[in-house]
Parts: sequence; C-alpha cells; structure tokens
Amino acid sequence: MAYNDLFLRAARREATESTPVWMMRQAGRYMQEYRDIRAKYGFLEMCRTPELAVEVTLQPVDLIGVDAAILFSDILVPFPGMGLDLEFAAGEGPVIHNPVRTVEDVHRLRVADPIEDTGYVMEAIRILRGELENKVPLIGFGGAPFTLASYMIEGHGTRDYEYTKALMWSEPKAWDELMTKIGDTVIAYLSAQIDAGAQAIQVFDSWIGYVAPRDYERYVLPHSKRVIDALTAHGRKVVAEGVPIIHFPNGATSMLDLTQQAGGDVIGIDWRIDMARAVQVIDERFAIQGNIDPVALFAPEDELEHMVVEILEAVGTRPGHIFNLGHGIHKTSDPDKARAMIRFVHEHSARIRGEA
Amino acid sequence: MAYNDLFLRAARREATESTPVWMMRQAGRYMQEYRDIRAKYGFLEMCRTPELAVEVTLQPVDLIGVDAAILFSDILVPFPGMGLDLEFAAGEGPVIHNPVRTVEDVHRLRVADPIEDTGYVMEAIRILRGELENKVPLIGFGGAPFTLASYMIEGHGTRDYEYTKALMWSEPKAWDELMTKIGDTVIAYLSAQIDAGAQAIQVFDSWIGYVAPRDYERYVLPHSKRVIDALTAHGRKVVAEGVPIIHFPNGATSMLDLTQQAGGDVIGIDWRIDMARAVQVIDERFAIQGNIDPVALFAPEDELEHMVVEILEAVGTRPGHIFNLGHGIHKTSDPDKARAMIRFVHEHSARIRGEA
Repeated sequence: MAYNDLFLRAARREATESTPVWMMRQAGRYMQEYRDIRAKYGFLEMCRTPELAVEVTLQPVDLIGVDAAILFSDILVPFPGMGLDLEFAAGEGPVIHNPVRTVEDVHRLRVADPIEDTGYVMEAIRILRGELENKVPLIGFGGAPFTLASYMIEGHGTRDYEYTKALMWSEPKAWDELMTKIGDTVIAYLSAQIDAGAQAIQVFDSWIGYVAPRDYERYVLPHSKRVIDALTAHGRKVVAEGVPIIHFPNGATSMLDLTQQAGGDVIGIDWRIDMARAVQVIDERFAIQGNIDPVALFAPEDELEHMVVEILEAVGTRPGHIFNLGHGIHKTSDPDKARAMIRFVHEHSARIRGEA
Repeated sequence: MAYNDLFLRAARREATESTPVWMMRQAGRYMQEYRDIRAKYGFLEMCRTPELAVEVTLQPVDLIGVDAAILFSDILVPFPGMGLDLEFAAGEGPVIHNPVRTVEDVHRLRVADPIEDTGYVMEAIRILRGELENKVPLIGFGGAPFTLASYMIEGHGTRDYEYTKALMWSEPKAWDELMTKIGDTVIAYLSAQIDAGAQAIQVFDSWIGYVAPRDYERYVLPHSKRVIDALTAHGRKVVAEGVPIIHFPNGATSMLDLTQQAGGDVIGIDWRIDMARAVQVIDERFAIQGNIDPVALFAPEDELEHMVVEILEAVGTRPGHIFNLGHGIHKTSDPDKARAMIRFVHEHSARIRGEA
C-alpha cells in the first residue's frame, strides 16, 4: 500500500486531489475492538502502556480508513508530572484531587519533564511511526493553556468555570505564572512528541468556548500564541518543511477573529458556524479543519451525504481543507456510518477539486 | 415609589435615561431568601403554587433591585398537559419518564390547554401584576420549540442531542408534526400569559447553540418564527403598543444572522460574542438584551465594573439595550455582587447616555 500523505499536504495547504479526513476521538468507544481492550484496562493504564496505546491508535486506521492516525492519549497526562493528583474515576471523567485554588498552589506547581514524566507517550509515538510507515501520518496532541488550567483549578470537568475565572480576574499575576508553567510544560511535552516522530500536532482548547472574547484576548491569547509559536519553531528545527500545528479552539466560533491570532498552520472549527462563513473569516494563510456536526453520524446516509457535500462545496478549491467532525465522535456512533462519511468526503471532494 | 418602566421602554427601543437590568434565573438559589422557601417545597410544587411562585418572583425586585420581574416557573411546565410524565428529580434536573422517540409517540402528544393544564401560572401572573403595580414590569416566559423538543425526546438534559437530531433528520414529517404541536402549545400558553397580564415575553431557546446553522435554518427557524409571529400578533390585540417578545437563542452567537430572522422585538445574546460585534450584526429594528459573562459576578468589583462599562460603551446610545447576564445567574453567586453590578449599569449608562 502506498503511503497516504493527503493529510500532511492539506495541512501545508498544498493542492490535493481529494480531501483528507480523520475524526477526533477516532480511537474510542464507538468501536467494538476498542471496547474489548478497554474492558480489560483502566483508561490511564492504556495511556501509559505503549503497546496498548499503539494498538488502539491503529484500530481506526485499519478498520475505518481515516487518512491520519492520532495518538491515543489524554491532554491531562502531563498533570502528575506537575504535581497534580490525577485520577480517571469510572463514569465520572478526570478528577484532580489537589486542585489549584490559591496563589500558593500555583507556586507549588512544577514544570513537568516530558521524558521522565511522560516517556511512555514518546515510546508509543516511536512504535507508531514504525507501524504507520506505509500507511498514514501520525498526529500528536496536547491541551492549550486555558483548557488545562480549567481542569487544574476546577478539579474536574465543568461548564461554569467559576474558580478558574475568579483566579484569572482576582489574581492576574498568579494566573500568568500558572499559564506560563502550563505553557512551558506543553511546549516541552509537545516538542518531545515532535522529536519522537509526531508529524503534526493538534493543540486542543476544548473549553475555550466558555470564555468571553475580552477575556480570551487579555488572559489567554498571549499564552496560546507563545505555545504555538514555540512549537512551530521547534518543528522547523526537526523537519525542514515544518511540523503542522493544528489549533482547535472548540466552541469559539463567534471569536474566530481572535483565536486565529494565536497562530498555527491549521484552524480547527466546530459545527456551530457555516463553513461558507468560516472560509471568509479564517485568513488564507491557514488551512481549515472541520466541521460536520458529530451527531451527523446518527443521520440517514442520504442526509449525511448532503451535509458532507455542503461543507465540501463551501470550501470549494481553497487549498488546505482537512475534513473532521466539529467535536469528538460520540461513543454510540455506528462505525459503518463513519466509513460512509469518509467515502462521501473522498468521492465528492475528488469531484469538486477535479472540476476546478 | 414611582413605577419603573425603564425595561418596557428599552424593549420598545424608546430612549431611556439609563439602561434597565434584570438577570436570568434572578429568582433562584443564590438568594438565602429563596433557599429558605425551596427547602420546604419541591421545585414543581413551587411552580404550581401561585403564592409561592409570587413570593420568590418578588424577592429579587425587593432585595436586589432589578428593573423587571420575571415569573418564577420553568419552561417545561406545559409538558404534563401534552401527555408527558415530568419529574424534577433531586439533584438531577428534569426527567421525562415517557420520552418521545417514535413517530407513534409524536402522534400521541396532545396540544396542552393553557388554562386547564397550567392555570396556576396565569393565577400567579394576575397576583403579581397587583403586587408589582407601583414597582416594575412583569416578564412571562416559555421555551422555544427546539429546546422543548430536545427535552421531550432525550428525556433529560444533555449536550449531545443524538435522539433529537436523529428524529429530525430521519423523520422530517414527524419532526414537523412534533414542532407544530409544541408550537401550538407554546403559542396558546404564552398568549394566555399575555392575557393574564405578562407585559413582555421571553422565549428561551436554551439549547439551540448545539444545532448547526444549516439545521437551524431548515428544521427550527420556521417553527420559532411561527411562535414569535403569533405572540407578536396576540400582544398587539391585548395591548395597543404591543407586548415585547424577547427571543433568546442561547449559545448561538455564531449564527445571529439566522436566529434574528425568527423575529421578536428584543434579541438576547450570550457572552460568547463581543457586544461591539453584536451591535453590528443585529438589525437596528431589534433591541438587544445581554451580555455579561454570568461568572463575572465572581470577579472583584473593579473588574466587574470594567466589564459592565465595556458592554455599555459598545452599545453607546443605540436605543433599546436591556442589560442582562449572558446566561442564568449561578447558584453560588454573591447577591451583593449582583447589587453592585446593577448599580454600575445604572450609573455608567446614565453617564454614557447623558453625554450624547
């Protein structure tokens, strides 16, 4: 099988004969093959065991047919290295038993060492590059500073962010110290992923959609930009043409003018915005990743096909489109629908791009 | 005390000497006086007992100083009249024990009778109008069709809407029948609120922010518009100058071009968009309600004041601004901060509007 580099070419805004597609959370519970493994191991145990991480990372490449693999892991794995007591409680998601609530808590945080604290991630990446040699590129990933800060401060997932924003507004110096320590951790962590062989990096700002534009601009953007700029520079040192950085500010489609100022090569967008508008708002120097409603995989095939075509036609022949869900695939999705979506993307994008 | 009609004048886009303010969920758990009553009664019991609903509706008017009262109730109270088995389970929010999942379920649904099924709401409104005679206007409210459909179909609160969207895409005729039955129920219910004396009506589309613009336009907008148009027409029959309709499409700030097509007099916006941009995007025929981050009440007073001023200055002297949180007030908010926010709104808006 010839190496499929559609994803990397699109991420670099080179012309492609069709549009590459991958799915956030593609190594996940919607697949029986994943559930079989997950039944035997804890979530963090899977992240920390390279053989297991490698196995589930490869599943959607082999069984669903995506154009890129993304490392099976979690944005929170660097937390223990920073001094945080992280647990994935069954059915509850992540819990941090010693959340960051005071200025002293911020002072106590360490910058994690990527190799000493998360060497298992780099090991998984090295194995994966070998396994994927004749297949598809490998995406590494991590969390953006705000999203990581919010887990650290709240101590668990939330939709409110009272403690996070209260610290941001009340203790701006401690906030800067915190965001800088997180930024340093993420830069080192994702640079090590690049060194280990990750061919693109996605930076997930999963909860930034709960932040007002004025607060994003003042308290978040400089830190996100510092991380993305550093990773961009590091990528150029490792690979001549650079390692594409995908910036995904989830739920922030009403402030794309601001989020794209954080830089990167690819802007990921959720499904709350029409692709036709996104194409207008997102500067031409960026590739675009997105943006079908993840629940579209519960639609009948003909409606799913309509949705795919609408997005592809809105992008037209603009170089640099990576098709993806606007958010992670839902755990009850039908793998056959995912396969159908991928087929629709490939067929219709080849037609649209061929007509140009 | 002179009657304070700031809110009504702003809703009608008349010039006001300062900006009126109220808070979504202002009769709620952040107030000790509310918690004292809530400790003794169930949530639905409070909605269904006019004396209790009246008492907690008046609390923020008397104790916090808002410029409008909003009926204490819930958007789901018409559900039992439609044949749905609604319960507010302790700590879990609303549960519908017989959710709508099939075409047959849709056929079985009834259009509720506003007086027979929810006469207690109309009784509370009549009492409140008497109590508020020398105080402030009274806002009635209900749910928009999509938001009500999503509760009905999912059976509880969610962030995914798989069942809802699957029905919408798979069974468009049943979806239309469902949305029409809901629309008919809401039109009758809110018309009865107007008849009972509600001086403005807010239509909450609380979960519309999870719907893609293409689906909003095809499957939701016509139904929202039908409801709002009917209420607008009914209001004009009851009150010569009309009863202002506030349309609040929560979380949908990246498709304001579409949501405002549903009509109404006031567009409510959440905090995910800068007010400066909202003022550009929202047509001048609408008043605007919003849009401070509800978590801003956890900020120090000087930062809270900055945020208030930024919003007021972005609106400038455009007629028709009602200050509100971008979403409901959080239950752990400090009532003193709410009072401070209201003072900042009144003082700075008087200055800004006086300078013109």
